Amino acid sequence: MDRIHSPEDLRSLTPEELRRLSVEIRTLIIRTVSENGGHLASNLGAVELTIALHYVFPSLNDRIVWDVGHQSYTHKILTGRSDRIGTIRTQGGLSGFPNREESPYDPFTVGHASTSISMALGLAEAKRLAGEPGNVVAVIGDGALTGGLAYEGLNNAGRFPGNFMVVLNDNTMSISRNVGSMAGYLATIRTKPGYLRAKSRVERVLDHIPGIGPRIHHGVSRMKSAVKRLLYRSTLFEDMGFRYYGPFDGHNIDKLIEVFEHTREIQHPMLIHVITDKGKGYSFAEQDPGAFHGVSPFDVATGETPVSGDNFSSVFGNLLCELAEKDEHICAVTAAMELGTGLSGFASRFPSRFFDVGIAEEHAVAFCGGLAAGGQLPVFAVYSTFLQRAYDQIVHDASLQNVHLVLAVDRAGIVGEDGETHQGVFDTAFLEAIPNVTVFSPSYYDDLRLDLKKALYECSGVAVVRYPRGRQLFRPHDYWPGRLFYTAAEAADPSQIILVSYGRLFAFTYEACDALRASGFDISCMRLDPILPLSAEVVKRIALSAEIFFFEEGMEAGGVGEHLNLLLSRAGWNGAFHLKGICGFVKHAPMEKTLAGLGLDGRAMADFVRSECRTCQRKEG
Amino acid sequence: MDRIHSPEDLRSLTPEELRRLSVEIRTLIIRTVSENGGHLASNLGAVELTIALHYVFPSLNDRIVWDVGHQSYTHKILTGRSDRIGTIRTQGGLSGFPNREESPYDPFTVGHASTSISMALGLAEAKRLAGEPGNVVAVIGDGALTGGLAYEGLNNAGRFPGNFMVVLNDNTMSISRNVGSMAGYLATIRTKPGYLRAKSRVERVLDHIPGIGPRIHHGVSRMKSAVKRLLYRSTLFEDMGFRYYGPFDGHNIDKLIEVFEHTREIQHPMLIHVITDKGKGYSFAEQDPGAFHGVSPFDVATGETPVSGDNFSSVFGNLLCELAEKDEHICAVTAAMELGTGLSGFASRFPSRFFDVGIAEEHAVAFCGGLAAGGQLPVFAVYSTFLQRAYDQIVHDASLQNVHLVLAVDRAGIVGEDGETHQGVFDTAFLEAIPNVTVFSPSYYDDLRLDLKKALYECSGVAVVRYPRGRQLFRPHDYWPGRLFYTAAEAADPSQIILVSYGRLFAFTYEACDALRASGFDISCMRLDPILPLSAEVVKRIALSAEIFFFEEGMEAGGVGEHLNLLLSRAGWNGAFHLKGICGFVKHAPMEKTLAGLGLDGRAMADFVRSECRTCQRKEG
Repeated sequence: MDRIHSPEDLRSLTPEELRRLSVEIRTLIIRTVSENGGHLASNLGAVELTIALHYVFPSLNDRIVWDVGHQSYTHKILTGRSDRIGTIRTQGGLSGFPNREESPYDPFTVGHASTSISMALGLAEAKRLAGEPGNVVAVIGDGALTGGLAYEGLNNAGRFPGNFMVVLNDNTMSISRNVGSMAGYLATIRTKPGYLRAKSRVERVLDHIPGIGPRIHHGVSRMKSAVKRLLYRSTLFEDMGFRYYGPFDGHNIDKLIEVFEHTREIQHPMLIHVITDKGKGYSFAEQDPGAFHGVSPFDVATGETPVSGDNFSSVFGNLLCELAEKDEHICAVTAAMELGTGLSGFASRFPSRFFDVGIAEEHAVAFCGGLAAGGQLPVFAVYSTFLQRAYDQIVHDASLQNVHLVLAVDRAGIVGEDGETHQGVFDTAFLEAIPNVTVFSPSYYDDLRLDLKKALYECSGVAVVRYPRGRQLFRPHDYWPGRLFYTAAEAADPSQIILVSYGRLFAFTYEACDALRASGFDISCMRLDPILPLSAEVVKRIALSAEIFFFEEGMEAGGVGEHLNLLLSRAGWNGAFHLKGICGFVKHAPMEKTLAGLGLDGRAMADFVRSECRTCQRKEG
Repeated sequence: MDRIHSPEDLRSLTPEELRRLSVEIRTLIIRTVSENGGHLASNLGAVELTIALHYVFPSLNDRIVWDVGHQSYTHKILTGRSDRIGTIRTQGGLSGFPNREESPYDPFTVGHASTSISMALGLAEAKRLAGEPGNVVAVIGDGALTGGLAYEGLNNAGRFPGNFMVVLNDNTMSISRNVGSMAGYLATIRTKPGYLRAKSRVERVLDHIPGIGPRIHHGVSRMKSAVKRLLYRSTLFEDMGFRYYGPFDGHNIDKLIEVFEHTREIQHPMLIHVITDKGKGYSFAEQDPGAFHGVSPFDVATGETPVSGDNFSSVFGNLLCELAEKDEHICAVTAAMELGTGLSGFASRFPSRFFDVGIAEEHAVAFCGGLAAGGQLPVFAVYSTFLQRAYDQIVHDASLQNVHLVLAVDRAGIVGEDGETHQGVFDTAFLEAIPNVTVFSPSYYDDLRLDLKKALYECSGVAVVRYPRGRQLFRPHDYWPGRLFYTAAEAADPSQIILVSYGRLFAFTYEACDALRASGFDISCMRLDPILPLSAEVVKRIALSAEIFFFEEGMEAGGVGEHLNLLLSRAGWNGAFHLKGICGFVKHAPMEKTLAGLGLDGRAMADFVRSECRTCQRKEG
């Protein structure tokens, strides 16, 4: 591995050395992920595929576009980042996903699924228009292929007038197991390798007859197409305008190199179907690739991660099961995140009411709209960042229908090590403008329990409960479930200053408030829950203070703080309003460090109040 | 037609009477649309199909889910609304789309494409869980099938354990002409009716042998499947888990009834492929269905609409052509709206740089991200309401990539007669929170010209130019292109009150300001452009007035006004801030009437200022 400083260096290795390289890389990946956490199974599955791709497409003129990007560690190792791979997912270190700022070998910064074909097609068209050389290759998993965007990409790429390669990295499961007809379809064609190998050989021979090859190719192709439809099954991908090659063993480097060398020359959209084993080379991951999809640091020898106990997802999942026991109208929907959203219990206890729709958030929301219109009570559990996909469906297929459904928005707020593509910081802002929406933002498990029940049984329209990744933070000594006002604000006599926040961030707000009171400030704090709509009573109560500091673990612009400020203006309040929220994309780092860096931990909040406070300056002055 | 008060009444008609009914309905549709405007060609294409569907599925237990809904006039006529069809698209009258509030026969309120399969599947699953009788039928056009959501729906529906019918209403074009591989694929299977008719006959016979039918069906089906793959081409829809039937003549009522009667009994997902002629029965629409997709009132005898002259779309399209002449990096992208967005000229002059991607807004934005990363300068022209589909792509595939691309957002603001599914009122709010975005909102053609050039050549990141449907409103006598401050505010001495707005609405704001000045108010007005970000200079200038009235043709919550109010608070301003924007969904009515109803025309703005003004009350008091 030490001899590989850029993909060009792969060319100097023998087949045997390439195989040894794959073993070395795999060992490095297992060690790194065991220390830093990260995506293990998908990375282990793509080692040989990545080596073969960079062997054939070593140039920066060639562009390899990774879908999702959770299989890109080998890519990083081969493109000059092996010495920094130990820093992956740590603050200031490499990102766990491809990143444009990190390397010229990363054409895009990614993290969401199903985008690669569309983005790669954009690059290919740009090359065509500019007359630039080089191949463009999109690498997409079978899971990401369940997303509608991938289909839109295929539908457009199938007519590209030149070489355009889509490598289908088929590991027979997306994050947990793959669902839907496409999964069944892939299972069918995986069992028919014979014809396709034959076909590939015929075309190869034809292409290499000098002079005639290209000329007769079209005619032969048409004839072959007709014959093939008689002798073999056609494939869906060929119906979409692609030439289909495969399936190939995705762990056979020699074979893969041969395939890519051949197909790179064909001036047509190509779909190359490669079968890989998720978790390949690490027995614990091979046996349970779902559990080793995204992992915390673990023990390499035993495959064990420290027992983690409850978290917001498990509290949600357990309560939903409890409620579904009594209420047979409750249905649970997930977009390929059964495990991550805490729905495994529900899935096994209520299989007929559990729907894993694949990586298809748009469908999930529209489908819930249909379930609700049909009299069921659907709950779609989804990560905040992926709910962005369903913005229009929340407006058009849920809110506008005036049906009652629940969105359980997990990973809301800062997610930590997954970084900028995964931060759940937009939902508060984008939900704000949608009519007919209620948003709860619990701070602690007990609040989540109360809020989920309210969302199910006291709301109409779209009821959202949003909660953070991981565990609840420390609770104030005077906490009780559902409590909003804390310290002096509770009393009849309101404080001069009030700190306001919501969700997880309230723990830090309370901490800051405590510290400031200790140093003599006339101050109190409160949490908002729900955060949409804000009741006239809550606004009136806040307006009793002369100065407001609002802290928000979400985008500042268009968010809850801005809306509260407007309501205060309308109520005739003209005190001093301060807002500290998130601006811009937020890079990867541990959650608490990230919040500190954003000025959103207890210490930073207290400092902010001390430096910005107007009424205290007046007092002092 | 007078005998049809509900779909049940169709059963009493003879085949000949059904055919006569279709002629009567067609005449009524042509007359109605010629008077009220609306979707003509798609409605004319679906007359017989709708009659046949309601003949076979007359019960409210059966649910017919129309995709998009611009083909639902016959449906409205047959479901008790024929006496009100003359009110369609008028204020207080019938909606131009299916509407849950209007009739129990409309399961959903729709207007956006590609949602029907997902929503119908939700209804079907709800029925299954509740053990309720009845069929669910989704009717989707070939255009809507280019949207990823439709694919996500198919992928999930293909495993439904019972009857689930998708009727593909294939008129060989979406709004203008269909694009992408799917269009080519449908063209292929349209030419192979023989096998499919034979197949349908075989199955029908088998199904009707009492006792044996259902029992042997599965075995035969498997055998047939194998044989078929040898003898005939399989279809993409069968690969997706559906049984495919068709193609059938969509204007043959008898045949369609026979097909639906047969397929409704089969406990499996079914795709029924029906070929229709868009514009059928009205020669002008048959000849140019694109032009008669959505139309203004026209002369039935000549097919002519009053010449309309320039509008924002044409001004945009013409300028883009002009600029593209000089700059070969400019590419134009549309999602099946070449005509509507004013890009026809570009398409014919620069075909290699013009991309119609189908009804696939998600792909369009991700594709633009790729084009931009490859060094091109892409401009995606899209209606505001449809851009909602691409929220996540704007965040993840454009803004995060830090590439430069332009979104030309047409139909921003109130669209009028298309109503609540089509109002372009969310873009200002949802763009607010996305980093790396500039938003221009021109008030007049000249501003649009300036803004488009700025977006192309003076911005980085995602540059948005949003402009309304139709023509510019009256311009102030002292208007000049790009001017922001008007009347007294221009001078060194700021006014007591300032009215602020942006986009088209500025014309009314100016009018209100003029009227209020005439009655003695110390008042001025301004337009914001850009509306994101707001410069410190603009904020400082506005803050010189003691009282601000902000008018917004967009959602109030999370919008531009709220953001300005925060910036003012931050600048230490503590005057009175008033905001009048949009809350809730807005029903169909002419644009000016809608704005008046929202309190957003000149008269309503002036009244609002008179009643809410705080500083003038102080003066008087």
